Amino acid sequence: MITGKNYIGNEMSAIGSVRFKTMDPKMNSENEWTCFEATTKEIHSSVDKAWKAFKVFRNTSQVQRSTFLNAIADEIEALGDVLLDTYCKESGLPKGRAIGERGRTIFQLRTFADLLESEDWKLASHDAAIPDRQPTPKLDLKKTVIPLGPVAVFGSSNFPLAYSTAGGDTASALAAGCPVVVKSHPMHAGTGELIASAVIRAAKRTKMPDGVFSNLNSKGIEVGIELVNHPKIKAVGFTGSIKAGRALFDIANARPEPIPVFAEMGSINPVVITQNALISNGPKWAEAYAHSIVLGAGQFCTNPGLILAIDSEALSKFTDQLAEKIATLDPMCMLHPKIKAAYSNLKLELTAQNGVEVISNEVHTEKNYADQTIATVSGTQFLLNPKLHAEVFGPFSIVVKCRDQQQLLQIIGGLEGQLTGTILAEKEDSETLTELVDELQQRVGRLIYNGVPTGVEVCPSMNHGGPYPASTDARFTAVGTDSIRRWVRLVAYQNFPFHLIPNKL
Amino acid sequence: MITGKNYIGNEMSAIGSVRFKTMDPKMNSENEWTCFEATTKEIHSSVDKAWKAFKVFRNTSQVQRSTFLNAIADEIEALGDVLLDTYCKESGLPKGRAIGERGRTIFQLRTFADLLESEDWKLASHDAAIPDRQPTPKLDLKKTVIPLGPVAVFGSSNFPLAYSTAGGDTASALAAGCPVVVKSHPMHAGTGELIASAVIRAAKRTKMPDGVFSNLNSKGIEVGIELVNHPKIKAVGFTGSIKAGRALFDIANARPEPIPVFAEMGSINPVVITQNALISNGPKWAEAYAHSIVLGAGQFCTNPGLILAIDSEALSKFTDQLAEKIATLDPMCMLHPKIKAAYSNLKLELTAQNGVEVISNEVHTEKNYADQTIATVSGTQFLLNPKLHAEVFGPFSIVVKCRDQQQLLQIIGGLEGQLTGTILAEKEDSETLTELVDELQQRVGRLIYNGVPTGVEVCPSMNHGGPYPASTDARFTAVGTDSIRRWVRLVAYQNFPFHLIPNKL
Repeated sequence: MITGKNYIGNEMSAIGSVRFKTMDPKMNSENEWTCFEATTKEIHSSVDKAWKAFKVFRNTSQVQRSTFLNAIADEIEALGDVLLDTYCKESGLPKGRAIGERGRTIFQLRTFADLLESEDWKLASHDAAIPDRQPTPKLDLKKTVIPLGPVAVFGSSNFPLAYSTAGGDTASALAAGCPVVVKSHPMHAGTGELIASAVIRAAKRTKMPDGVFSNLNSKGIEVGIELVNHPKIKAVGFTGSIKAGRALFDIANARPEPIPVFAEMGSINPVVITQNALISNGPKWAEAYAHSIVLGAGQFCTNPGLILAIDSEALSKFTDQLAEKIATLDPMCMLHPKIKAAYSNLKLELTAQNGVEVISNEVHTEKNYADQTIATVSGTQFLLNPKLHAEVFGPFSIVVKCRDQQQLLQIIGGLEGQLTGTILAEKEDSETLTELVDELQQRVGRLIYNGVPTGVEVCPSMNHGGPYPASTDARFTAVGTDSIRRWVRLVAYQNFPFHLIPNKL
Repeated sequence: MITGKNYIGNEMSAIGSVRFKTMDPKMNSENEWTCFEATTKEIHSSVDKAWKAFKVFRNTSQVQRSTFLNAIADEIEALGDVLLDTYCKESGLPKGRAIGERGRTIFQLRTFADLLESEDWKLASHDAAIPDRQPTPKLDLKKTVIPLGPVAVFGSSNFPLAYSTAGGDTASALAAGCPVVVKSHPMHAGTGELIASAVIRAAKRTKMPDGVFSNLNSKGIEVGIELVNHPKIKAVGFTGSIKAGRALFDIANARPEPIPVFAEMGSINPVVITQNALISNGPKWAEAYAHSIVLGAGQFCTNPGLILAIDSEALSKFTDQLAEKIATLDPMCMLHPKIKAAYSNLKLELTAQNGVEVISNEVHTEKNYADQTIATVSGTQFLLNPKLHAEVFGPFSIVVKCRDQQQLLQIIGGLEGQLTGTILAEKEDSETLTELVDELQQRVGRLIYNGVPTGVEVCPSMNHGGPYPASTDARFTAVGTDSIRRWVRLVAYQNFPFHLIPNKL
């Protein structure tokens, strides 16, 4: 079923000699299928096809694109168990998660299909002419948005479906009228191919132009670099590490014609717990956070990696409970041996820093499974040592014991940009939270009150992004219907006969 | 009245030893006042003050900021004739233009003040909680926008008021809640100081925090570079040349924390004339375009520098009429001897290219006045020679005689991004314009039908921007109320008690 070939538009292609295999991290062995790294020729063919397709695709009606997106959702559903099995074999994630993420992916596609039923999202506006205005007449002006052009999408490692081949970036770009060239994630290239086959079937069935979608395999960074450097690629969507996201951002900005890159990258997602919350609800939060930290082996960009509170007896009690609880949870398999290795190394480096104390018991795990860990450090040490601010991708969290509220605020003020910031508090804290909310708001894209940061709702009011390095442009969101705005630009029509305006306002 | 000092927030400062003077281009002599180049210490003081002010300013109400903007408008009006005189002495532009541009500047400030009377511009949204949703409850989510932080504004040479010290960038950034540090344009530093004094008076009168606005003098590029590199500057607004805009863009993107740069740069503003328009209205368009090309000595970013039509007798007649008409108009003084020199040199270089023919009679001018010029070239030559695509800032336009419609479309497809694209046509052309409109739309930010590109209306439906290099981000506009979106970012509140949300939705 899985051929390992690239999709150059509707055509399957495997002209290169470089091959690679994906891993089954649970079995710690290679999967049977072989994938073919896309060649320069294949990259160029896919972009040339996308460019040609753009001429037609940008002039499709919203109803046509809505039909296309719904057809993709149908075709993904129709893939059935082979998709779920491949997903599990390439990620080590359980089948329940595969089903859930498939549901989310389909929901995203259908949500954009629904969005296209109305023109409202374009925020079109109209200023009527005032022919007798003095000293000069005012001319009729209409404004709307049009698609940017072919978009390169880089799938994430941790969401093989919802933030990959036909995930949020692809769905929103296609909804906007932009052809998509996916650089498939090498850890789940088989899953990516299955999804790509569904997109291509949907494109054919709904008569979309050949080239509206391509899927390129690559185990390294070369294909991505060539793609982002291609003059006919007009925007980039990326989910992944700060290092890779920043590299693509730098390449895109160094082009003769720079292009927008929306990269959703790292975050340690600070959580602040007040004394009142520790006293009134310590055990509840310890339980909730143990689960949130371990969820999906901690492989979420919204994983709570940093817990801040003022040092006290109540905090010690909470950290003990958190450490105790977390050690009782079943360890989970990580996505790939490389990700497990990176987790172990980073955690080792971080816990070796001055003043850092591991307080959870050692968890014994099978190969490629993550051993969840809780550490503590003083606020003073945390302020002194920027190494402690780094994201450890996996089920690890550090509790920072702050001297007082001032030190806590100082720590927040010094944090890099984050996707989320959470406040756990009690009613009686309300009066004293103003400054904390104001400071935290400056550093994050989403504020959560009395909850966990994991779990990103797909809805219009979601914001998934944040100040750098949470994302490369905090003015846009990666999740929810507003994410379509990343792929469109403004255009105004002055004194224009209505029938001459393409894709009527 | 003009001290030549910098405004570091409310404080006047001149601690540096580097001084410079502005030029009166009409007199070809230096103006009497001396300006003090801002030092590194002054740059840092202004940004530190802006950062401190941001803590207060971001939490002002929209009504407070509206009052501030109206107060700036009042104070600019109150400057009276000294502003107009200084403007004329530093730009060579006539008093009528000074009055007009002052009116536009005031109108912009008051338009943003009006915008702030309503919360609509924030596009806030709300998804209500669904506590009993299966399998997990949906949490309440609200989304709005918050200001980015201190913005560095680089004034333009050609709009000493409307796109400078308290111009569109400053007005929109202050409206958004961002403090502003202006790098004053060295050609009109005296005008800039007067405007800065008005802003500071308004800030004091409306009790805005010290540091909400600063104005730094600099005759070179160093102050701008230091400013954009400062970690507490969070966004950049720029109007000027491609070279300078790109340099700032590159600096901003190379920072450890990259920041958004909205640079509105060059454009040759293609104009397409159909055969029917040439035949039916040739003399009308020759007259209108002669005026549009010479307006403000051609020193507008929307100046029509490129006229495209299919070669024919009607086109020859039109170019003759245009050349004839333009030679009868009074030459205008340019902004600065350097700008005149650049105009002469670039025009010389361009008209020396293979196949380029100057068809207007030589216009004799006084020193620093621009001699308007019309040239022609074949479509084939234009396609072969990218040097012909360069902007000549001044009253110069090249008419490209295309072999046929296909060549005309090919030329448009190969153009760099433009602020505007114009179509001059007749009713009977409608059927045949679809492809032209579609192609032209891909290259421009604003399409004009049967009009001139000069004259940028300040209204919600305006788009002033366009694909690179017209601007560095085509997703935003520099003119009109939507320009405020450049300086805000998204933030979502999950499960948040309403009274804890700063600056209520």
